[in-house]
Amino acid sequence: MLTIGVDIGGTKIAAGCVTADGTVVDRTRRDTPGRSTAPAVVEDTILDAVGELTARHRVHAVGIAAAGFVAADRRTVLFAPHLSWRHEPLRDALYRRLRLPVVVENDANAAAWAEWRFGAGRGESHLLVVNLGTGIGGAVVTDGALQRGRFGVAGEFGHMQVVPGGHRCECGNRGCWEQYASGNVLVREARALLTSGSPVALALREATGGDPDALTGPHVTRLAADGDPACAELLAEVGQWLGVGIANLVAAFDPGRVVVGGGVSEAGELLLGPARQAFARTLTGRGFRPEPALLRAALGNEAGVVGAADLARPFARRLARARYRRELARTATTGR
Amino acid sequence: MLTIGVDIGGTKIAAGCVTADGTVVDRTRRDTPGRSTAPAVVEDTILDAVGELTARHRVHAVGIAAAGFVAADRRTVLFAPHLSWRHEPLRDALYRRLRLPVVVENDANAAAWAEWRFGAGRGESHLLVVNLGTGIGGAVVTDGALQRGRFGVAGEFGHMQVVPGGHRCECGNRGCWEQYASGNVLVREARALLTSGSPVALALREATGGDPDALTGPHVTRLAADGDPACAELLAEVGQWLGVGIANLVAAFDPGRVVVGGGVSEAGELLLGPARQAFARTLTGRGFRPEPALLRAALGNEAGVVGAADLARPFARRLARARYRRELARTATTGR
Repeated sequence: MLTIGVDIGGTKIAAGCVTADGTVVDRTRRDTPGRSTAPAVVEDTILDAVGELTARHRVHAVGIAAAGFVAADRRTVLFAPHLSWRHEPLRDALYRRLRLPVVVENDANAAAWAEWRFGAGRGESHLLVVNLGTGIGGAVVTDGALQRGRFGVAGEFGHMQVVPGGHRCECGNRGCWEQYASGNVLVREARALLTSGSPVALALREATGGDPDALTGPHVTRLAADGDPACAELLAEVGQWLGVGIANLVAAFDPGRVVVGGGVSEAGELLLGPARQAFARTLTGRGFRPEPALLRAALGNEAGVVGAADLARPFARRLARARYRRELARTATTGR
Repeated sequence: MLTIGVDIGGTKIAAGCVTADGTVVDRTRRDTPGRSTAPAVVEDTILDAVGELTARHRVHAVGIAAAGFVAADRRTVLFAPHLSWRHEPLRDALYRRLRLPVVVENDANAAAWAEWRFGAGRGESHLLVVNLGTGIGGAVVTDGALQRGRFGVAGEFGHMQVVPGGHRCECGNRGCWEQYASGNVLVREARALLTSGSPVALALREATGGDPDALTGPHVTRLAADGDPACAELLAEVGQWLGVGIANLVAAFDPGRVVVGGGVSEAGELLLGPARQAFARTLTGRGFRPEPALLRAALGNEAGVVGAADLARPFARRLARARYRRELARTATTGR
């Protein structure tokens, strides 16, 4: 039985048909409409991607992974920084147009769920997941349950302050962790290095034709993997902040395993090596307590799709679909 | 039916007989033996306090709240900064001498449990508790269960780094939160102000006879309550850091309520007012998300005793006591 997972990121909407064992058997992509686009246009884009897949497969439920605050009832997106959603009743709106059970989940939660079900977090009773994409997404899975918090917005690890008065964050605050450990930071620091004119930036200059705007995270990762010391240092610096932040989270949550995912994790040990070192130096009580392993995520950038599809699976069976419809009819919001 | 709670702090061991509704009907105290004292001496002191109470009351179980890392099985204290305990099999050792079921719990966990059962956290499904004593103790109660983490050492909020390269902490790291918000910090900063010779420290100088070693936290709180602006500022500074740290924790845990306890919380609004302001300015996503209330703990410095006693209560009934004895015999450690 297939379900669809849709991962709505800041730049791309990825959709996939997923089996019960987490295999993506078909996939499609759309560009994410810009911030100024009306919510209905974003919905149209989601439906267009889902429609392409339902035309080719029999599908029984749809999971949506959204980069934003999803309310505890998983019907409403409270706030999405990259989209025009503000208190958007996404679940009901999509259900009305799809006539399939829809589950909405925060994107980091969905990715963590996938890692716990099928990836590097399998079998762990206390799993903590940190996703390094443009920012930091995070989630905790305890005894097989996502920890959503009281209002559904737990796991915003990226916006914990690590440097008082530090870099301004897109959330409006200063010194947020994701201003020191994320894909955006890697690019920001690489651009600063490039424009500094320093001779250590030679490889970066050659790879980008000297144009800071052409520089991307994968440039840095590729050059570092090829042995460029400056790019390795840039990744190590992000890795060090990653390790410090993880030590903070481990002090608070005491997980049995920490999984690092997201695009930046593709740098592998160039990122995780320095992260492990900083973590080992920073964890409080080290030497007197068991310590969690720090592992790279296994599912790559499809974790959000796989997790969202799997979270929709409980609603895919015929009886569950009928229950879902009845419950939705009973509690229907007025919509827009 | 009475149970005993024993709260083992850095300086005092407090014990109390507690009823099922959380009332302390009798109490006693001992000084905590110093760091260099053998574990058996600490046990003797605990047993002496418990013995005083059992001579006066019929008691059915004993809960121990210990300032230290308590392992997930709640038998062993992995590490206690103020005591000589290192992998100390405290539960079994005490049971052998008391012949009563013994439960060992981290002191902040026990205090949080008391607040959830009988105090300011009652009825809250997602409760976060921060205790400002000499350091910071913390705990989370979700759906009526203490979140102990994978190894039993969750909630070490005080050792999350908030200032890179900041003040040296007793845990060995730098910049830990409890180096900016705790009773120790209040005293450290008040002493620094006193010895600075600044005219704003006049009231402090008079209250302590100019002796920095004579200065205590309650001096500062009392002078602030009497209107001394310098002491109010000292409390406000601690409160601001308290608010920033709570904003970090709320980003991660998304609790429905935050309760602030511990000795420093006796300063009331002189501490909590500035904490609420800093929290309101620092919480990520503010304005787009529900926010938890920030309340003062209700049970004062008896929360540890009440919580420990209540956590022992499930083992107080006759059948439970028999089960406890059998389980202990089956899994007995070799002890010392």
